[in-house]
Amino acid sequence: MKTWFLYIGWCFPMLLGAHGMYPQGELSDRPNIVILFCDDLGYGDLSGFGHPTIKTPNLDRMATEGMKFTSFYAASPKCSASRYALLTGRLPARTGFPAVLGPRQDLGIHPSERTLSEGLKKAGYATAIFGKWHLGRNREHLPLQNGFDEFTGLPYSNDMNSSERPLPLLQGNDTLALDPDQSQLTVLYTERAVDFIQRKKGRPFFVYIPYTMPHVPLHPGKTFAGKSIRGTYGDVVEEIDWSAGVIMEALTNLGLEKNTLVFFTSDNGPWLVKRERGGSAGLLRGGKGSTWEGGMRVPGIAWWPETVPKGHLAMEACNTMDLYVTALKLAGAALPEERRLDGRDIQAILTREEEMPGPKPFFYYPPRGTVHAVRKGPWKLHVQIQGKEHLAYFKEEELPLLFNLDSDPSETYNVAMAHPEVVQDLSYELNTHTQHLKDEITISYK
Amino acid sequence: MKTWFLYIGWCFPMLLGAHGMYPQGELSDRPNIVILFCDDLGYGDLSGFGHPTIKTPNLDRMATEGMKFTSFYAASPKCSASRYALLTGRLPARTGFPAVLGPRQDLGIHPSERTLSEGLKKAGYATAIFGKWHLGRNREHLPLQNGFDEFTGLPYSNDMNSSERPLPLLQGNDTLALDPDQSQLTVLYTERAVDFIQRKKGRPFFVYIPYTMPHVPLHPGKTFAGKSIRGTYGDVVEEIDWSAGVIMEALTNLGLEKNTLVFFTSDNGPWLVKRERGGSAGLLRGGKGSTWEGGMRVPGIAWWPETVPKGHLAMEACNTMDLYVTALKLAGAALPEERRLDGRDIQAILTREEEMPGPKPFFYYPPRGTVHAVRKGPWKLHVQIQGKEHLAYFKEEELPLLFNLDSDPSETYNVAMAHPEVVQDLSYELNTHTQHLKDEITISYK
Repeated sequence: MKTWFLYIGWCFPMLLGAHGMYPQGELSDRPNIVILFCDDLGYGDLSGFGHPTIKTPNLDRMATEGMKFTSFYAASPKCSASRYALLTGRLPARTGFPAVLGPRQDLGIHPSERTLSEGLKKAGYATAIFGKWHLGRNREHLPLQNGFDEFTGLPYSNDMNSSERPLPLLQGNDTLALDPDQSQLTVLYTERAVDFIQRKKGRPFFVYIPYTMPHVPLHPGKTFAGKSIRGTYGDVVEEIDWSAGVIMEALTNLGLEKNTLVFFTSDNGPWLVKRERGGSAGLLRGGKGSTWEGGMRVPGIAWWPETVPKGHLAMEACNTMDLYVTALKLAGAALPEERRLDGRDIQAILTREEEMPGPKPFFYYPPRGTVHAVRKGPWKLHVQIQGKEHLAYFKEEELPLLFNLDSDPSETYNVAMAHPEVVQDLSYELNTHTQHLKDEITISYK
Repeated sequence: MKTWFLYIGWCFPMLLGAHGMYPQGELSDRPNIVILFCDDLGYGDLSGFGHPTIKTPNLDRMATEGMKFTSFYAASPKCSASRYALLTGRLPARTGFPAVLGPRQDLGIHPSERTLSEGLKKAGYATAIFGKWHLGRNREHLPLQNGFDEFTGLPYSNDMNSSERPLPLLQGNDTLALDPDQSQLTVLYTERAVDFIQRKKGRPFFVYIPYTMPHVPLHPGKTFAGKSIRGTYGDVVEEIDWSAGVIMEALTNLGLEKNTLVFFTSDNGPWLVKRERGGSAGLLRGGKGSTWEGGMRVPGIAWWPETVPKGHLAMEACNTMDLYVTALKLAGAALPEERRLDGRDIQAILTREEEMPGPKPFFYYPPRGTVHAVRKGPWKLHVQIQGKEHLAYFKEEELPLLFNLDSDPSETYNVAMAHPEVVQDLSYELNTHTQHLKDEITISYK
């Protein structure tokens, strides 16, 4: 009964679920959750988001049958921190969780964090992850110790591979292979996911598929290699598109599509320094690692036939931490109450049945250091900019920069002088946030 | 019978058509042609081409029910020259036709040009233009003297308006109003087009709708003003989207949709210097006036239910001069034989029934001066670049620049050093073209 006390904040129905006592009728009312999560896919890398030479018919159909989010954000412009936020509903800056874990680092997600998988599992969901974890390589940090029933995938990025330390492919807590054939990973994750969905169809499930691709090195499967005129980058994106199609088809064949929310997105923007092996942020400025829009705004697609209305565009700013909150709400699980969350419930946006309350500020943190920018409604205020790439456009003396992202998504026209009251309001939000964070940090990864 | 001799090159069936003797059965087999032609709409300005805050549900549906062209080009980065090319199938550089005609200029399209409207009219089509002409303001240059049965619209751009020379709204050869309420123009063009289609439904027709918008000054109709979160630019684009929806609906209600090719595109890229009142080229570099992709690559959508296959992406480079050739071919009209055309028949792309022959080079001309670049297949060779904006990215000493537009649509990675044989081939194409043009010019607008 230790669990009872530890997770009292997670509410009663979840405990019932966790112990198999949740009434069947209510259980089946709760939707399955599937999150398809790319690695380094940019805002402009799907045909439905404007790429001229990458063909993504399944994802485009997912968007026309579902909802396309045009202002959807990863919570960090880098890998580990982004995944941390998705699975905890919290800004990595709250705890100092690092942007990218190296293969030799012993750090990992703190056991006191309340992961999405733990929350859903306790609410009675079968939970699985097939793909890249990147929240700690040691046993205590791996998925099975963090709320997932099943795991097949990589502990970290696919470029963290060397002869002294070959990349492991894990199954559960065990190593299935070293330096695996990466060209088979997208198929492997897809097959495991379909198999899991088929096995678990009697109860609600959560499947998280953090694809290894299109992170470099690019390894398309043999069916896709050399097929895209975009080159190898296009091949791997088109294979992910295929995978999304297979998942949607499996759900439909099992009659589960009307009771499953599928959400497709990416962990951060495109890795521009990789040149043609990196992706495109479309009309957005910057890429991976940057707090310009291109670093953090990513494609977002929700698919849930008959619940998410067909063909709607969601232009409100939403982010991966919102998925944490929304998924727990959909599962009927209460949210952890003893800690501050940064996401919000976006069911009103997904169903278009009611108005969302006013916008919640979204904070842009660079991989290291203090907050760079805040967005509230259409407005984004930059109080810092990084590196010489950015200084080509704006000078440090011009800070703070204010952009209206609705009319100027490419962050081209600084309108700070014209809207002093907005600058003041957003500066206040930033200061309040920074002060609050200073008082709040309870977990330290140092 | 003078017509007979003058237009002998236009072939026999057209003459029959022009004299009303074309057999009814064959006539009705020939499709109607509708061209929706925006003014300064950029590659990234539709939601289906990746814009985050402009909603274009009708055009997006047009693309999912039809074919989306992701490498479609206007033949010039400026207004008059672009329209000249669409209606003659020829590069403006062949004749020295100016990039933009001013309101006081007496120049206009040469009477010896064989316009698309003349060709279709002679083939028995009812022909109309509702929108902006911009190929000469004097009577002999106006649409009715160039193959159109009906015309309502502006002789030139909507910013060419002053108290000494108020902008005229013309009907046929007459002035209907001076300095008209521009917020009513999109509705006016749409209503006239629907009326024309209803009146002419018994015979094949050609309707050309060169919208006045989104060229500045931006004047949305009252139903759209203030509706788009993108601002006024979004309002006028969303009104054009509405117009496209009304045209498709009218065709469908009349049972004509399966016998009508509707093609949507733009005259050049976005007018970036207009800041938020100008559009977006999406992931492409540059805008209106430039020979970078953003100046000339524009959205292209073909809609022709049951003939153009549903939901296909056409990634081959095509352009407005191809529409000239293709429309005449679809009408069963022979092409003018005594002059060189720059377009090609793209029916094979539209129907996906057969392979296109190898790519034809496409030449990028700036508003003034000699050719800047050529594209053949995926390769684009720049031998000139303009202005200081472009010198921020590449230096004059680096010329020529070679880009693979399939893998690098944003023209970021110069690969000239890695592909000397491609540089050589494209240089040869440029030299041959330039030499050929020097020998060919027969019409002079000087």
